[in-house]
Amino acid sequence: MAGDKKLVEAITSMEVDFAQWYTDVVKKAELIEYSSIKGCMILRPAGYAIWEMIQSELDKRFKETGVENVYMPMFIPESLLNKEKDHVEGFAPEVAWVTHGGSEKLAERMCVRPTSETLFCDLYSNIVQSYRDLPKLYNQWCSVCRWEKTTRPFLRTTEFLWQEGHTAHATAEEAEERTIQMLNLYADFCENVLAIPMIKGKKTDKEKFAGAKATYTIEALMHDGKALQSGTSHNFGDGFAKAFDITYTDKDNKLKYAHQTSWGMTTRLIGAVIMVHGDNSGLVLPPRLAPTQVMIVPIMQKKEGVLEKAAELKSVLSKVCRVKVDDTDKSPGFKFAEQEMRGIPLRVEIGPKDIEANQAVIVRRDTREKITCSIDELETKIPEILEVMQNDMLERARQHRDEHTTTAVTYDEFKDAVENKPGFIKAMWCGDVECEKKIKEDTTATSRCMPFEQETLSDKCVCCGREAKTMVYWGKAY
Amino acid sequence: MAGDKKLVEAITSMEVDFAQWYTDVVKKAELIEYSSIKGCMILRPAGYAIWEMIQSELDKRFKETGVENVYMPMFIPESLLNKEKDHVEGFAPEVAWVTHGGSEKLAERMCVRPTSETLFCDLYSNIVQSYRDLPKLYNQWCSVCRWEKTTRPFLRTTEFLWQEGHTAHATAEEAEERTIQMLNLYADFCENVLAIPMIKGKKTDKEKFAGAKATYTIEALMHDGKALQSGTSHNFGDGFAKAFDITYTDKDNKLKYAHQTSWGMTTRLIGAVIMVHGDNSGLVLPPRLAPTQVMIVPIMQKKEGVLEKAAELKSVLSKVCRVKVDDTDKSPGFKFAEQEMRGIPLRVEIGPKDIEANQAVIVRRDTREKITCSIDELETKIPEILEVMQNDMLERARQHRDEHTTTAVTYDEFKDAVENKPGFIKAMWCGDVECEKKIKEDTTATSRCMPFEQETLSDKCVCCGREAKTMVYWGKAY
Repeated sequence: MAGDKKLVEAITSMEVDFAQWYTDVVKKAELIEYSSIKGCMILRPAGYAIWEMIQSELDKRFKETGVENVYMPMFIPESLLNKEKDHVEGFAPEVAWVTHGGSEKLAERMCVRPTSETLFCDLYSNIVQSYRDLPKLYNQWCSVCRWEKTTRPFLRTTEFLWQEGHTAHATAEEAEERTIQMLNLYADFCENVLAIPMIKGKKTDKEKFAGAKATYTIEALMHDGKALQSGTSHNFGDGFAKAFDITYTDKDNKLKYAHQTSWGMTTRLIGAVIMVHGDNSGLVLPPRLAPTQVMIVPIMQKKEGVLEKAAELKSVLSKVCRVKVDDTDKSPGFKFAEQEMRGIPLRVEIGPKDIEANQAVIVRRDTREKITCSIDELETKIPEILEVMQNDMLERARQHRDEHTTTAVTYDEFKDAVENKPGFIKAMWCGDVECEKKIKEDTTATSRCMPFEQETLSDKCVCCGREAKTMVYWGKAY
Repeated sequence: MAGDKKLVEAITSMEVDFAQWYTDVVKKAELIEYSSIKGCMILRPAGYAIWEMIQSELDKRFKETGVENVYMPMFIPESLLNKEKDHVEGFAPEVAWVTHGGSEKLAERMCVRPTSETLFCDLYSNIVQSYRDLPKLYNQWCSVCRWEKTTRPFLRTTEFLWQEGHTAHATAEEAEERTIQMLNLYADFCENVLAIPMIKGKKTDKEKFAGAKATYTIEALMHDGKALQSGTSHNFGDGFAKAFDITYTDKDNKLKYAHQTSWGMTTRLIGAVIMVHGDNSGLVLPPRLAPTQVMIVPIMQKKEGVLEKAAELKSVLSKVCRVKVDDTDKSPGFKFAEQEMRGIPLRVEIGPKDIEANQAVIVRRDTREKITCSIDELETKIPEILEVMQNDMLERARQHRDEHTTTAVTYDEFKDAVENKPGFIKAMWCGDVECEKKIKEDTTATSRCMPFEQETLSDKCVCCGREAKTMVYWGKAY
């Protein structure tokens, strides 16, 4: 049993050093490997398979709302990036520039896309003429590049995978509706698939996207009490349309500007799953997200009939879940540790004695609960346990978040909360960016969002004491 | 009916100008839009949906052979690209170089991947230690960039989408086996899904991949008699393993080099589908590839009950095929022309008289054949017609290829064939690269492959008259 010790001892405990625990998990669960390119990571099969699950679930949901996929070039000429003033100011400092093609210097340098608003706008200005051409509901799955100084796997990398939706509409109302629709879709996906509850709300002007009229966000709380912005949906109004001349002839024969949105989710979500559900044995994947939901581990597999029985169970269970057998020549203890490190939701142990008793032992990854089950009932029992586990994980995450959400009425309470109570802080705000800046300077906490579900905690701004306009979620964030 | 005329007249006839016909189809079928970036195209929804079909079919087949997906960085540091001598000589002249990140000049410039052998080798050298770590069967779906002087949509673009498989094996035999396995998988996919018959064979040394020991290829014949290399599979032997130090400890405790392969298919396949199956009304998609297989076109749709019946048919047919209703306010003639331009395999026309007679008219895109069918039988009849159409398309393509394959024994026959008989030329070759070069200089035809299915056409090289070693397919190529 030396093998499993080696695997387990290599992880730093999250109570000792949460950041190191995180790094250990992403490496030991073989989600990523560092590459020789600054700030870029390699997604290994176990990591990429999670992204494929996210992709297929989101893509299905997008298409149900009429979204179509496209693919845009990875390069943006400098002159195109420069067309929308706020946008270029936000992104130019962090793009990678291509200056040479082969041995020739380019007449105009191009950046590797940090996001593709400018490309979609350029396209829409060419293909939208009439109200009949609207709405355009396009999305693309691709990688983007932002030159980051400090990087962390999944959370902040120079290159990352994402989807970016870009829509164009006839009216402002329709654009706003789509912006909120996609935010709701994101939140629903996170709760139902990732088992992560989200706070939905609007970003303050200071925190909104470069070039947007309004940015909406979903915010999650990690195990260490830090917030993670998990998805954003932007309403651009007609700002980009004016910069890129996206006009259409309406039914009344008048020429009008289109109204646009964009919305995106990234591989960062995998970081959220790790930091919300993981424990000191490694990753814990919610069943609906797990590429492998059940690992069958044969015990004393050299005994006659054990491997055969394991294969038989796999063939039966593959009708109701995503299942594998670990029939390698490692020890059972090593296999257990490996399955736990990789976060596979259920383990089914089957050995000679179990076979004799016509039973198997199911072990839940999240609670370690052992359930002895008749072999004949596995096919009905396992999907039930997976469902219960999915719900339990969401509930535990919700409970953790609620227990780590503090209300602050006075600035002293606020500062005390930032210092001593890791988590979200709910506090009133006057709407002045100066208070937002002061809070950040004093405490390092930032405004996460102005939640859709508002409460009146007091009638005064927590910072300046003037009249409060809105309740804000604050917190230290990744 | 002005609308449909406008749509149809805009296409150049393929007999008049095949290249212009091709360009017209890709634009009018809305597969692509040109972008403001040199040589890069935008894949619009109709074009990207075809790529999604290709992706999901290939991905399923890859996974059935044990392949796992990963994602590697899009950048390659210059020093890494330089590690394998032949490889860098092949690719360095055509890569895009990133020299600046944000406002800073990079210490070492990086290229945007033209292909990822070097990155996979770097990874394998880190994660392969023991024979237990082999084989590694990785694949990635991504875009790559090759700086091209002249470009054509799908066939040759600066950036294109593809998959690249990269495997590492313990033995040379296993690597060769995987190389051939993937080539066969490709050919099978092309024949069964794209309805394009392939010639399988080995590339000559002159035409093989930069750094490969052997390159295998599948070659198809386009409607204009030109060849298209449609997929390649490379055996690297241990050349890259030696350059990148990919070693493993074998069961006998000896340190050995791994043996590697790579194989790829690209969006170029969409170009092949257009040029093999298209006609003067536009695209013709084989049913198994078509994102929409059946378009229901209501006739006199303002009459009571017509749209309802069309919706009812859609709901019934969606159980057995991918079906849509065109209920826009365009004229039926315009809808017909549009459906034909987009290559949707079947059209179902349903109007008041049809409803009265409890029937509908099915029109095949490839043959224009009209089939009157009882509404009650549509559900069984349509899948049958789709299957027949799929097979007919493959057979027609095979017949076209066979009719456009000429055997040349003398050099005069060869030159006459290149000039007057567009298509493949089968001819014997001595194996000397000088003859290959001379043929290319004299005729512009290149060696496409040395087919697995060899024939002895004569005992002399078609070019120099010396002893022939092998039969080669030659042709002008895209």
